[in-house]
Amino acid sequence: MGTRVPPLARLLTHPPTSLPQQSAAPADRDHRYPVGMSEALTNVLEHIDASLDDALERLCDLLRIPSVSTDPAHDGDLQACAKHSAGLLRAAGLDATVHQTTGHPMVIATGGDPNGPHVLYYGHYDVQPADPVELWDTAPFEPTMAGEGDDRRVVCRGAADDKGQLMMFVEALRAWQEVGGGAPVRVTVLLEGEEESGSPSLEPFLEAHKAELSPDICVVSDTGMWNRETPAITTMLRGLVYLDVTLFGPSHDLHSGMYGGAVVNPLNELTRILGSLHDDDYRVTVPSFYDGVREPASAEQWKMLDFDEVAYLASAGLERSTGEAGRTVLERNWSRPTLDINGICGGYTGEGAKTVIAAQGSAKVSCRLVPGQDPEAIEAALIAHLEAQRPDGCRWEFQGHGCNPAIEVETDSPWLHAAVAALGTEFTNDTVLCGCGGSIPVVGSFQSILGAQSLLIGFGLDDDRVHSPNEKFDLVCYHRGIRSHAAVAEALAHVSAATT
Amino acid sequence: MGTRVPPLARLLTHPPTSLPQQSAAPADRDHRYPVGMSEALTNVLEHIDASLDDALERLCDLLRIPSVSTDPAHDGDLQACAKHSAGLLRAAGLDATVHQTTGHPMVIATGGDPNGPHVLYYGHYDVQPADPVELWDTAPFEPTMAGEGDDRRVVCRGAADDKGQLMMFVEALRAWQEVGGGAPVRVTVLLEGEEESGSPSLEPFLEAHKAELSPDICVVSDTGMWNRETPAITTMLRGLVYLDVTLFGPSHDLHSGMYGGAVVNPLNELTRILGSLHDDDYRVTVPSFYDGVREPASAEQWKMLDFDEVAYLASAGLERSTGEAGRTVLERNWSRPTLDINGICGGYTGEGAKTVIAAQGSAKVSCRLVPGQDPEAIEAALIAHLEAQRPDGCRWEFQGHGCNPAIEVETDSPWLHAAVAALGTEFTNDTVLCGCGGSIPVVGSFQSILGAQSLLIGFGLDDDRVHSPNEKFDLVCYHRGIRSHAAVAEALAHVSAATT
Repeated sequence: MGTRVPPLARLLTHPPTSLPQQSAAPADRDHRYPVGMSEALTNVLEHIDASLDDALERLCDLLRIPSVSTDPAHDGDLQACAKHSAGLLRAAGLDATVHQTTGHPMVIATGGDPNGPHVLYYGHYDVQPADPVELWDTAPFEPTMAGEGDDRRVVCRGAADDKGQLMMFVEALRAWQEVGGGAPVRVTVLLEGEEESGSPSLEPFLEAHKAELSPDICVVSDTGMWNRETPAITTMLRGLVYLDVTLFGPSHDLHSGMYGGAVVNPLNELTRILGSLHDDDYRVTVPSFYDGVREPASAEQWKMLDFDEVAYLASAGLERSTGEAGRTVLERNWSRPTLDINGICGGYTGEGAKTVIAAQGSAKVSCRLVPGQDPEAIEAALIAHLEAQRPDGCRWEFQGHGCNPAIEVETDSPWLHAAVAALGTEFTNDTVLCGCGGSIPVVGSFQSILGAQSLLIGFGLDDDRVHSPNEKFDLVCYHRGIRSHAAVAEALAHVSAATT
Repeated sequence: MGTRVPPLARLLTHPPTSLPQQSAAPADRDHRYPVGMSEALTNVLEHIDASLDDALERLCDLLRIPSVSTDPAHDGDLQACAKHSAGLLRAAGLDATVHQTTGHPMVIATGGDPNGPHVLYYGHYDVQPADPVELWDTAPFEPTMAGEGDDRRVVCRGAADDKGQLMMFVEALRAWQEVGGGAPVRVTVLLEGEEESGSPSLEPFLEAHKAELSPDICVVSDTGMWNRETPAITTMLRGLVYLDVTLFGPSHDLHSGMYGGAVVNPLNELTRILGSLHDDDYRVTVPSFYDGVREPASAEQWKMLDFDEVAYLASAGLERSTGEAGRTVLERNWSRPTLDINGICGGYTGEGAKTVIAAQGSAKVSCRLVPGQDPEAIEAALIAHLEAQRPDGCRWEFQGHGCNPAIEVETDSPWLHAAVAALGTEFTNDTVLCGCGGSIPVVGSFQSILGAQSLLIGFGLDDDRVHSPNEKFDLVCYHRGIRSHAAVAEALAHVSAATT
């Protein structure tokens, strides 16, 4: 398992040639520690190299805590994970506190150079459920090393999403503290425990702490590289609407002999209604669904990219793409909205046969949204469309699990330029600015509540099996990610807050 | 729970006036023990009345064994239940053995008058699963008495289907043994433990034991009364095809952000395909599905019957019938074939949200069949229809759980006439010959393998919640059912084998 799959080529929303070529410490790419790098950063990077085993051990300790935020049975693990994270932040020289919420706690840590620009680092310590557990080759919450040499990786739920990613900036800050005289920027770290369950506490928390948070720039560590050798900053993200729908029919489960053919069957009806949410061209049939959807300016360029569709599909075990007619795979995943059934359940699902007409059937339905779509309007349209098809004798119940708009990050900012330059000191290949089919709603909240832009700098790979059995994170990504965050911190320190 | 609901008026396939009015012991219906009843039967009936509490206790002991045949976790309970049943049959004076099969055991018991006609009594000691367990008001396998006076009932999984029903002939035979000088007919009792899971061992067993079984007539106790005051013999039963279908897509569960919109989603496809198995008139769209389906000669008469559609639907918590256009409710349930999804499952079904595209989705699909339909042909047509719609990148897996034809029982036989006459000694109202939307495949097996007709004499009521939470059986039905079986046994003893 965890076979290396060729990575998905990512989108250059701006071709690399348009990126600023200056850097805080101009890089000679033939040297690992380029000429002109500060002595402090040189020391920090050497310390990171020398203490990588310890950093890995600390990641593994964090991974062992099964912090599944969607399952109330794990509430205690979320508390334990927040407490453990606060300890790691204190060891990085920060002043850390665990803030209780009505859901899972927020971990906040502050420190660094009070005169530097204020950087808010964001990550999430909660993880997806491990199920289907039987498809894991090793225990989901026991970090296991696999592979050899450059292929070494840690296999565990949360390894890539997001514990491995947040630990990279935590370890970079720790190295700055241990050998660099402290972080070169004013630091706030915000770790949440509800990212995988819709972040219900995040916006109220940001509203309540707006004054003291007030960052100049946010660094969000929850995205991917272009490939192992090429760093990426994500500038486009799809939004999400997620809805539990339940169709109720008869008052109780019925014998399908005594009633079959003469009464409404909620499972027959549920499949009929859900099965009609796409037309033959795989366009979503919910009225007004495509209202406001724009054609991205760069869509034409995407067709020129050397996108490796075969490898992308192979990573899902597929040979062909299925999706909206007349659209490329990149459009289908990055710039077109979707509707997917994420789960469905009803009636008898055990071994063998039970001749029952179920009283109800349920499904989890989500839509990925693109810029121009209003999440609340899409949720309302979906509910109205389902209600309009309510079968006689049935009633619907709906429960929302999140409603977040798509995000476009500002690409022409000194923060982005500085980050790109710093990544240029760590990687030979130019940084690419890419899109992403997933959602990181916190970026929108930072924009709307804190008035702050985000840099989405992540080191995941496309074969990390995020949200799937046998999730993994490559050690080389972890290592270079820690080094990159150390370098980016210094680069951001040189951006004057006045210029923003 | 278990509220009394007005019963479903049942079909008179032959108006009662066409039934023979003679009886083995001509009844004066103003007397409980009619003039002319044999002394032996009089003693037997008095004994049944006097020992009803003991008979109820014995039923409760049987109900406490959770003999769920569809769930391998209960295999030990099936063995225990078979052994316990054999003990009850020995106490009724029969020679009982437990026969192991590749599935759950068969219990066979023989005895009675070796010179009488050979009657094969059939029942099943296995029960449906109890789930959804949370909808039970009491523990599903702890028999609980509810109600007062004539409304007294025992609430337990299996109370009506079929432990309460099989115990009625066991208790009748026991009473004949204790005070009547033994059963007046040659008796074979066959109790199976796989009725609720497709009876895989039944036909091989009948084939292997054809010679010694060879009954003159079978008595099957697994059906209902017309209402509490009116006995019924069921002469029409629908058949059944039951299929597990699973649609496989991606090789593993995928993140719906990273892949959504660009890859096949098995749950979107499964709902689309299953949702298209009916047209707007609720006719099944599987090609050839209606081939051979006949219009029953009596269909026109059914429209004249005082069928209480409101009460029937109210018993399911519904106000209107949903089904094939242009058909009455009785036609929909008795003489028209159906297709129902009995269960569906796939993807994330836990608490909250998980943004996953599942690797697979499954459903349990069953068709109720009517005379003229070939079950194997229907199963093949359904599979072919699903295969024809297989989405690109997906594959189907199918597992059958039974394939049984509809049954029409011969209504013009001396056995039926004798049974009707005997029921006339117990009930004031005439016995009605009715149809049933359910399936009792053993009747077809008895016909095809043993060459024997069956009398389907049962004492269930429409509000028994068979296959549902809070299943119950009325004590008055249990009592009159035991008395009726005692009387029917004597009536059958007077039918000469030569006349059949």
